[in-house]
Amino acid sequence: MAPHSCKGCLRDIIASRMSKESNETAMEVNGLEENGLPDSPYPPRMRNGVSDFPCFSAMPWFGMDIGGTLSKLVYFEPKDIPKCESASEVETLRNIRRYLTKNSAYGKTGHRDTHLQEVNMKLAKFDEFDSLLKGLQYIDRNSPTECYYWANPTDESKCAKVNYDFSSPYPFLIVNIGSGVSVLAVYSATNYKRISGTSIGGGTFLGLCCLLTGCNSFEEAIELAAEGDHTHVDKLVRDIYGGDYERFGLPGDLVASSFGQMNSRERRSKVSRQDLARATLVTITNNIGSIARMCAIQERIDRVVFIGNFLRVNPIAMKLLAYAMDYWSKGTMKALFLEHEGYFGAVGCLLQFQEYLKS
Amino acid sequence: MAPHSCKGCLRDIIASRMSKESNETAMEVNGLEENGLPDSPYPPRMRNGVSDFPCFSAMPWFGMDIGGTLSKLVYFEPKDIPKCESASEVETLRNIRRYLTKNSAYGKTGHRDTHLQEVNMKLAKFDEFDSLLKGLQYIDRNSPTECYYWANPTDESKCAKVNYDFSSPYPFLIVNIGSGVSVLAVYSATNYKRISGTSIGGGTFLGLCCLLTGCNSFEEAIELAAEGDHTHVDKLVRDIYGGDYERFGLPGDLVASSFGQMNSRERRSKVSRQDLARATLVTITNNIGSIARMCAIQERIDRVVFIGNFLRVNPIAMKLLAYAMDYWSKGTMKALFLEHEGYFGAVGCLLQFQEYLKS
Repeated sequence: MAPHSCKGCLRDIIASRMSKESNETAMEVNGLEENGLPDSPYPPRMRNGVSDFPCFSAMPWFGMDIGGTLSKLVYFEPKDIPKCESASEVETLRNIRRYLTKNSAYGKTGHRDTHLQEVNMKLAKFDEFDSLLKGLQYIDRNSPTECYYWANPTDESKCAKVNYDFSSPYPFLIVNIGSGVSVLAVYSATNYKRISGTSIGGGTFLGLCCLLTGCNSFEEAIELAAEGDHTHVDKLVRDIYGGDYERFGLPGDLVASSFGQMNSRERRSKVSRQDLARATLVTITNNIGSIARMCAIQERIDRVVFIGNFLRVNPIAMKLLAYAMDYWSKGTMKALFLEHEGYFGAVGCLLQFQEYLKS
Repeated sequence: MAPHSCKGCLRDIIASRMSKESNETAMEVNGLEENGLPDSPYPPRMRNGVSDFPCFSAMPWFGMDIGGTLSKLVYFEPKDIPKCESASEVETLRNIRRYLTKNSAYGKTGHRDTHLQEVNMKLAKFDEFDSLLKGLQYIDRNSPTECYYWANPTDESKCAKVNYDFSSPYPFLIVNIGSGVSVLAVYSATNYKRISGTSIGGGTFLGLCCLLTGCNSFEEAIELAAEGDHTHVDKLVRDIYGGDYERFGLPGDLVASSFGQMNSRERRSKVSRQDLARATLVTITNNIGSIARMCAIQERIDRVVFIGNFLRVNPIAMKLLAYAMDYWSKGTMKALFLEHEGYFGAVGCLLQFQEYLKS
């Protein structure tokens, strides 16, 4: 999957903010531009767990979130690189890119840092969820159009993204849909807990789609799903009850059994790759929506923010979540989304590194 | 799938109980024996929704639970059939059997009763969950070894089914795993509500296994799963974190992303049908366990009874559920199972019919 890049939307905001805050560096999300002079802001220092590292002030600084399927990268761009250093910086960037695109983050040892030695890089590690939360709050604060919801998600002609003012966010749920899914309940900028999760996430969607359709990328799987019909694959409530199961409020077009028609050889022979991809997407998305709702009820929270790269180029899933949250909660819960869905962990990691150096 | 039959365990208990209660008929679960004389107990009568039906006292009476994948059947066996009627009774049974084994319960109309005309049968319909609950309570009351739990579910040498006294059952959760899954919270013999469900159930397991492995039956899918290793298919917490994610209590061998390795063409080429079946089973079972736990927390209920034909010939799923409920609740919740896992709806339907005739 090609990395997300948002030069047009975030660079200016964050760059100006960062230069106000530190007067030293500008941050850019996954771009490769030269845009100024660094002031070597922080003195070299050593910290717990970051021993024998020569100088943390060397640029660029990377915030990396190495997930189960994708590695997400953001970095501080030096404002100026002396000619003599320029070549080595470019070489470093090339190495980083090579490392990331090799897609061997965990290596054979299962320990992700072993392999990083090959690009002469040392790591300051921060907790994944701490980073996620800090990055999310930082970007939302600095990007006024970051947060939105889907209005009329089931009506293609009226459906639209609508800006949402998330300036008073607490409490809220984060449903982070990466390879797997984690659900966090957030009560303040620093007070949160992981309350639930499921292993059925974006990695399941991609893995199953690869197996069922022979596709080879997330984008391809999404394109297939966009053209498919899950009702050729699933068994609906109306397939079992002949209509709605009214007494328990189950509408006839609700999926009763995902992939429930695929025990029939005849039906398998008629189903398309597109149908299978769509059914996989619907199955996984609805399951996540259902778990999110249960968590929201349990925590008595009515705003649920869905993030993670499963939602990238994936309006089908977002609209399904928006509809399901609204319908099943009878309008009491709201599904919210963020423009930079998968980069908060990486951004937060970089922010934590900055705090760490200052401390 | 061959129908369940339990002549050795339930017939005597229920037969004696029924003959005490009605002194007229004996009930048998899915057997075909002649064992006594009927007294033509109930006068012919008509009820709401059961119009133009000539005579409800004609034997045999069937309790049918037509599910999304399976039709479950129990019946009252006439104690005696005059020679002259015997041939037609046998013919009726043959027709019923033919009807059921044709596996076309819903027909092309989506209405299940249209097709029943071909066997000259009329229906008295009862609510599915009412029937389920009545059947479950009736059988548990009459079968002292009906309810059990799994002790030491993760230790093959010590693992054992242990009888559980369920004579004071309330409140409890029912997790009914058929083609899809429904979760009921039960507070008394008649007070219950459907609190949750998921479309990822037994139909999903069978449908996905058929697609992924080319198998053609539930039994075959279970046999494959028994020989497979899901860690060749899934991505575990240790594959991402290098070990446990201790801060949030996630052990390294927990599945982080179901099918999360299957985006790799190389890994797909190495995976076996058995591994895929096992991963499908583990994915679906763990998801159900997770939803069950959330429901139990929400309702503050600590006993969860798992039923439905997904659990038939499926100790792997039962042990997974038993372990997961115990582990994640830190021993505060108990997973219970019932011997006649998939027949409570059909039995309860027959019991409701009896009540209906008496009323």
